[in-house]
Amino acid sequence: MGHTVIFQPSGRRGTVEAGVNLLEAARQLGVDIESPCGAARVCGKCKVQIQEGFFEKFGIESKMNHLSPLMEEEKDELEEEELQKNYRLACCATVEGNVLVFVPEESRGAQQVILETGRERDISVDPVVKNYYIEMIPATLEDQTDDFMRMKNALTEKYGLQNIDYIDYFVTVNLPETIRAANWKVTVSVWDGKEIIKVSPGLVENPWGVAIDVGSTTVAAYLCNLRTGESTVKRSMMNPQITYGEDVLSRITYSMMNEDGLEKMSRAMIEGINSLVKGMVDDAGLTAEDVVDMTLVGNTAMHHLLLNIDPKYVGRAPFAPAFKCAVDFKARDLGIKINKASYVHWLPIEAGFVGADNVAVLIAEEPYNQDQMMLVIDIGTNGEIVFGNREKLFSTSCATGPALEGAQIRFGMRAAPGAIEWVKIDPETKEPEFKIIGQQDWFKEGDEPIAKGICGSGIIDVIAEMFKASIIDKTGRFNQKLETPRVRKGTDGKMEYVLCYAKETSIGKDITVTQGDVRAIQLAKSALYCGAEYLMEKRGIPKPDRIVLAGAFGSYINKESAMVMGMVPDCNLDNVQAVGNAAGDGAKLALVSKAKRLEAQRIAREVEFIETATEPDFQERFAEAMAFPHRSHKFPSVQEILDKIPPK
Amino acid sequence: MGHTVIFQPSGRRGTVEAGVNLLEAARQLGVDIESPCGAARVCGKCKVQIQEGFFEKFGIESKMNHLSPLMEEEKDELEEEELQKNYRLACCATVEGNVLVFVPEESRGAQQVILETGRERDISVDPVVKNYYIEMIPATLEDQTDDFMRMKNALTEKYGLQNIDYIDYFVTVNLPETIRAANWKVTVSVWDGKEIIKVSPGLVENPWGVAIDVGSTTVAAYLCNLRTGESTVKRSMMNPQITYGEDVLSRITYSMMNEDGLEKMSRAMIEGINSLVKGMVDDAGLTAEDVVDMTLVGNTAMHHLLLNIDPKYVGRAPFAPAFKCAVDFKARDLGIKINKASYVHWLPIEAGFVGADNVAVLIAEEPYNQDQMMLVIDIGTNGEIVFGNREKLFSTSCATGPALEGAQIRFGMRAAPGAIEWVKIDPETKEPEFKIIGQQDWFKEGDEPIAKGICGSGIIDVIAEMFKASIIDKTGRFNQKLETPRVRKGTDGKMEYVLCYAKETSIGKDITVTQGDVRAIQLAKSALYCGAEYLMEKRGIPKPDRIVLAGAFGSYINKESAMVMGMVPDCNLDNVQAVGNAAGDGAKLALVSKAKRLEAQRIAREVEFIETATEPDFQERFAEAMAFPHRSHKFPSVQEILDKIPPK
Repeated sequence: MGHTVIFQPSGRRGTVEAGVNLLEAARQLGVDIESPCGAARVCGKCKVQIQEGFFEKFGIESKMNHLSPLMEEEKDELEEEELQKNYRLACCATVEGNVLVFVPEESRGAQQVILETGRERDISVDPVVKNYYIEMIPATLEDQTDDFMRMKNALTEKYGLQNIDYIDYFVTVNLPETIRAANWKVTVSVWDGKEIIKVSPGLVENPWGVAIDVGSTTVAAYLCNLRTGESTVKRSMMNPQITYGEDVLSRITYSMMNEDGLEKMSRAMIEGINSLVKGMVDDAGLTAEDVVDMTLVGNTAMHHLLLNIDPKYVGRAPFAPAFKCAVDFKARDLGIKINKASYVHWLPIEAGFVGADNVAVLIAEEPYNQDQMMLVIDIGTNGEIVFGNREKLFSTSCATGPALEGAQIRFGMRAAPGAIEWVKIDPETKEPEFKIIGQQDWFKEGDEPIAKGICGSGIIDVIAEMFKASIIDKTGRFNQKLETPRVRKGTDGKMEYVLCYAKETSIGKDITVTQGDVRAIQLAKSALYCGAEYLMEKRGIPKPDRIVLAGAFGSYINKESAMVMGMVPDCNLDNVQAVGNAAGDGAKLALVSKAKRLEAQRIAREVEFIETATEPDFQERFAEAMAFPHRSHKFPSVQEILDKIPPK
Repeated sequence: MGHTVIFQPSGRRGTVEAGVNLLEAARQLGVDIESPCGAARVCGKCKVQIQEGFFEKFGIESKMNHLSPLMEEEKDELEEEELQKNYRLACCATVEGNVLVFVPEESRGAQQVILETGRERDISVDPVVKNYYIEMIPATLEDQTDDFMRMKNALTEKYGLQNIDYIDYFVTVNLPETIRAANWKVTVSVWDGKEIIKVSPGLVENPWGVAIDVGSTTVAAYLCNLRTGESTVKRSMMNPQITYGEDVLSRITYSMMNEDGLEKMSRAMIEGINSLVKGMVDDAGLTAEDVVDMTLVGNTAMHHLLLNIDPKYVGRAPFAPAFKCAVDFKARDLGIKINKASYVHWLPIEAGFVGADNVAVLIAEEPYNQDQMMLVIDIGTNGEIVFGNREKLFSTSCATGPALEGAQIRFGMRAAPGAIEWVKIDPETKEPEFKIIGQQDWFKEGDEPIAKGICGSGIIDVIAEMFKASIIDKTGRFNQKLETPRVRKGTDGKMEYVLCYAKETSIGKDITVTQGDVRAIQLAKSALYCGAEYLMEKRGIPKPDRIVLAGAFGSYINKESAMVMGMVPDCNLDNVQAVGNAAGDGAKLALVSKAKRLEAQRIAREVEFIETATEPDFQERFAEAMAFPHRSHKFPSVQEILDKIPPK
């Protein structure tokens, strides 16, 4: 005999057989209710509120008895207040009549991941590593089934897992003792529905994972709860390989010039990751052994350097990497200290220099699901550009050099306290205003002199402003005829602009922007612009509908300045968005969702890589794109752009 | 257009298209010709002799030109004499007309494995690890395919491998350099058609493997050529765990009494295996890295003790092991020093004490393929018995104790020089004759006195002979009324038989057989007999058609003596066969044949284990079976048995 069950707020309804519990009823009707213990009545996570069809008083049979009586386990797990509000545990209450059930938010399966920029991403949390709580029937002389098979049987029976065919060696080592000490009640962590990678005594609700974005300069790590998808703890550090070379190519060179160079850099990276993990689990009150999964993204050189694979051939034509596909290696084989039997998952590489970090950006931003033509620019030491929409995506990489990160700029520095991050220049007086990281407001006379240098966003700003104020012309050359002490010949005989006099700094020196600095930024912006232009041409589309600026740098940049100097193609400014560390977002998404990993593998194959540096007219275009603002016949005039810019 | 091609000696014939080479023609017609290099024309292994349709003179076109002209590679690889005898390389010669081809034995695919007893076993050599030689097209800017994918593509194209989806981490580490240093010509070792476990420069014809039988007392190792199935080098050693306990139970106890006991025993075993491997590869002019696969067999306790898994629960009811299924663990995870990315394969465990060694015996002797009722007895510290035929097999294990291996016998010793191995006793005079290991003939007066003790086969012999000579009665008690100095009261007041006077020994003591020795052997033989009897009853069969005695001990035993004392059920002596280390044979077969591994997994599940010690009448039957000869009403009289025995 069937009864009608309705679940709110989803409104899903249907008929279920009498005697079925509400958890199973929810499953049948496609409603996701949390049940970490798998209906073993021990976790208390599947609370639901009965809105119609409940007992009027507990323990007293009533006419409205449409559910089985309250069980002892429910009395233990539910608060007095909850009991009064007719809460039940879905695993305990079986259907005896028609009922209307409300699933409170805390009991619903997690469906959202918070991205770095605070945006929420609807996603089905379906991680590759899951925990399963089982209670096994102990072995007897009549049933000498071995421990592994006994676990497999329990997992099949209770959770329908059919494909478990492997158990990691290091899990077997303590298996008999763990199972018996836990009185045959254990939580089994299963990798990809196939392999047992951990067996813990009793109920362990949450498997934990770590997502890592291995940037050339910065390594960012996120600790995630694989059951809920939440990521509350994050840490970052300088890439420890920086000691061996500021940029990718100098590290590759270091590995070639020093016999143990590669191994030293690999070990430094692994030790760095281990310390990040340690720091995060300490913050969260966990241990490194609680971390059962890890995803890694990074560019192709970081990929090879971390894995201790000779990066020499990645750094020279024809740039073929050792492998591009996604891989799952045992953490222990890499020396990564998490649960010993766990895997780390490297997302796939797209092509040559377009690495797993770019794939991660793609699965975070999903240009392949858009109708709009999207231009995704991930700006780092290397710039990766993707253009297209759901029909087709093209990608390329361009050597922007380290200027955009403040390196090779005379007073360049990382985005840290003391760095000038925003700049305005008065077109008449040529006098600047600036904002320093670490100060609330724009700098004014009498403030403490804390300026130390200029970070990436500051250098973009100042050069765009210098152009707007006609301090430099459209070729980037200084106007030598200005009557202002701000523009002068430096000690090297070359022109420079004084952004900040010595007395306003903490370094006791004038902070200047040199002709060389202007050239370095011109080279970088030209590389980015040309890359984007080739892709748009290839796609036959004159301008993007949307531009996404990714990367730590991308999120601080003044998009107006970037457009003023022709770093990115023309686009409605409202549709230009800085998304922060989208590569880290992608790594997190791949950590909590197997579907995202598969998406990454598909998209890494589908994106078509365009080698732009070998195009016959590359040199010519590149030189042309050095100018400010680029190709005014195609783009709005500077004034038109300026008119669009809201006041700072 | 097609031509007729006939291959001798198989006589297979068929039509193949013009232009197809003889190697491909052979494949099409189901003829197996060796080609380690995969027709890359570099190995010279696919020599065939053209019997009709050849050139009359090399380089000169003739009317009989039914094959393509001789290639330079053939001139390099073939001897002058071979050229004159019309040998060709099958990979070079393409069919241009009808040809009759003889495939010499050296070029045929290996099909036989030599067992320990010298028997040959027809088997298709189809190992789990195979070598594939490939020549890749180097990467270019137009084709930036990564190295792993490039290998996969080459393996698919040349060998049809479709399922390679993994590469071991440690293979990737040196991959770019290895491939390029070898000019894109490498040999890829593939595990189970799925995973790349080694990439070697150039052509490596032979993958090597090691099969290991981990006995409680002796560890035997075999180095095998996985291409040919040949095993030319073998080594054995005492099980290094013996330091911690003579038998299985005392080692389990040691692991329970000492905190690091288990780990010490595991490490000792692994180091032992590493030294065996080292010794064998040194003998064969190889390195440990050349070994790309390993199989392991052993009883359940050895299995756990080697793998560092707590054996406590294997040693006590209900005897459930950590796992029974066959496993493939990375050698490096166990500390086994062979090719770093290789697996070691533990054959499956049948049940409790019936371990992977017994499964190995089964795949070597194949009772499941016989119509005859076979009794397979693997005698060691523990006895494993299997009975049945193709329809159904039952197994059990019985605690024989260490007496049959010479332990707990006053003058017992291992089968080594100085051990008395065969004994005859004159029924009238009660005077013995004996044969000592290390001497060609039976011992006679005046020979050098080298006797040191009695080994397993000697103790069986002497006790059977004592019974036949009426020195002991059918209950095993000494006849106290004999008038011979050979039978006397020992210093402990108990009766003993002097097998060897002090002057005939190298130890300066009389070598005697005591009442305690007789009892120990009675216990062992009764255990074996009872086990066999239960299985025969279960199967409803009164007597076996064939008896197979396996184990090092089994191969030295006098089967007549064993039958005289009622150690094994009655059977025509001609059908009693000692097969030596059949467990080692099984390990070797599983090493060179994937089909054998699958057979092992199937049979381990299908054999039905009978727990005999819990049978209600076990004690009674056990006591009854202590007597010599057991249950004469069922069996021929001693005289009948003796009549059957050919003179020694």
